[in-house]
Amino acid sequence: MSNYKDVIEKLIEFRDERNWEQFHDSKNLALALSIEAAELNELFLWKKEHELSEVNYEKLKEELADVLAYAFLLAEKHELDVFDIVLDKIKKNAVKYPVEKAKGTAKKYTEL
Amino acid sequence: MSNYKDVIEKLIEFRDERNWEQFHDSKNLALALSIEAAELNELFLWKKEHELSEVNYEKLKEELADVLAYAFLLAEKHELDVFDIVLDKIKKNAVKYPVEKAKGTAKKYTEL
Amino acid sequence: MSNYKDVIEKLIEFRDERNWEQFHDSKNLALALSIEAAELNELFLWKKEHELSEVNYEKLKEELADVLAYAFLLAEKHELDVFDIVLDKIKKNAVKYPVEKAKGTAKKYTEL
Amino acid sequence: MSNYKDVIEKLIEFRDERNWEQFHDSKNLALALSIEAAELNELFLWKKEHELSEVNYEKLKEELADVLAYAFLLAEKHELDVFDIVLDKIKKNAVKYPVEKAKGTAKKYTEL
Repeated sequence: MSNYKDVIEKLIEFRDERNWEQFHDSKNLALALSIEAAELNELFLWKKEHELSEVNYEKLKEELADVLAYAFLLAEKHELDVFDIVLDKIKKNAVKYPVEKAKGTAKKYTEL
Repeated sequence: MSNYKDVIEKLIEFRDERNWEQFHDSKNLALALSIEAAELNELFLWKKEHELSEVNYEKLKEELADVLAYAFLLAEKHELDVFDIVLDKIKKNAVKYPVEKAKGTAKKYTEL
Repeated sequence: MSNYKDVIEKLIEFRDERNWEQFHDSKNLALALSIEAAELNELFLWKKEHELSEVNYEKLKEELADVLAYAFLLAEKHELDVFDIVLDKIKKNAVKYPVEKAKGTAKKYTEL
Repeated sequence: MSNYKDVIEKLIEFRDERNWEQFHDSKNLALALSIEAAELNELFLWKKEHELSEVNYEKLKEELADVLAYAFLLAEKHELDVFDIVLDKIKKNAVKYPVEKAKGTAKKYTEL
């Protein structure tokens, strides 16, 4: 069973074998991430809600993997623990979106 | 030390306490991810290369966490192992970007 | 009644009064455009098809205007006529999406 | 010389010949716009400032045209005048970014 440490090591090995660290500043990593996010979204473009299950599963895996890869590389660059930052953000969101106000509504916290 | 299993459990708990699963179809999760990716990019907008280290570190953590949260929720929805799919994609990219062709160049594989 | 020439003149005047041309290289203009596009998308996030008419009309105008402003500035920078390039693209798309194949389907041309 | 009216007529003719209006709700048009914006950004990905002039000019025209086409269609759907909304937004931005505060700085208005 694989884990985060294995994955980030492989990502760095892949990058360094190709001498690509020179391109991987934070701004370009974030930009690459958002381009991959757009490719992920393209899989659902024009699809109605009942058609979402028809998504190309193989491409979904690939595009989501690309997003994750750049997110992991950006985290690594800034020495961030990907699990800790998500757990911290959940705590912050719990304040922005208290259960009693946010339950069952998709409104943004600024409109609750 | 936290791990992926803890994080996805907390994300689902947060979602379910608010009865938000009804909004979390794949298309909207992917869209939310790309919106958070844009907020991450905004931290670097207009910045020159030598200014990238001035990025607001607290906001970087938060925006990257938002991206990861939606990526994890989308993976969970499709029963994808986030580590396996990245490792699989690295293998595919190794074919698209062989070291001898890709070393030191940022060209897309279609132009190598 | 206003026209493109008026608008681009105002955009440039606004930019130059603030001495912002130094920030407006093509890469940052394109990035700004995509960040505004994400803000536009956020207006529809989580909304079901029957809820789309509830969109905040004032914000829709503002976010779409931001997208257009950066698109116009990028076109101006590269001396592109915004109408000619769209008309040219329609001709190219007519080849990629011939009526007899594309009628009534949202498939990408690579899958027609 | 072409103008906005010609362009929007051609866009609608292209759409209607293919019976695509059924797919063009506001949410999907905005999503399509942001996907095209990402393709525009990809032309600059990994490029340093001094390399931006090497951009593929033909692709730049096409990707920018795609962004504009979806922006025009979204405006038309909501009966918005693309020039008026940009001129209105310039006036609002003049309040958010007064010359004396914004001159020569790329800071967001919330940080001025």
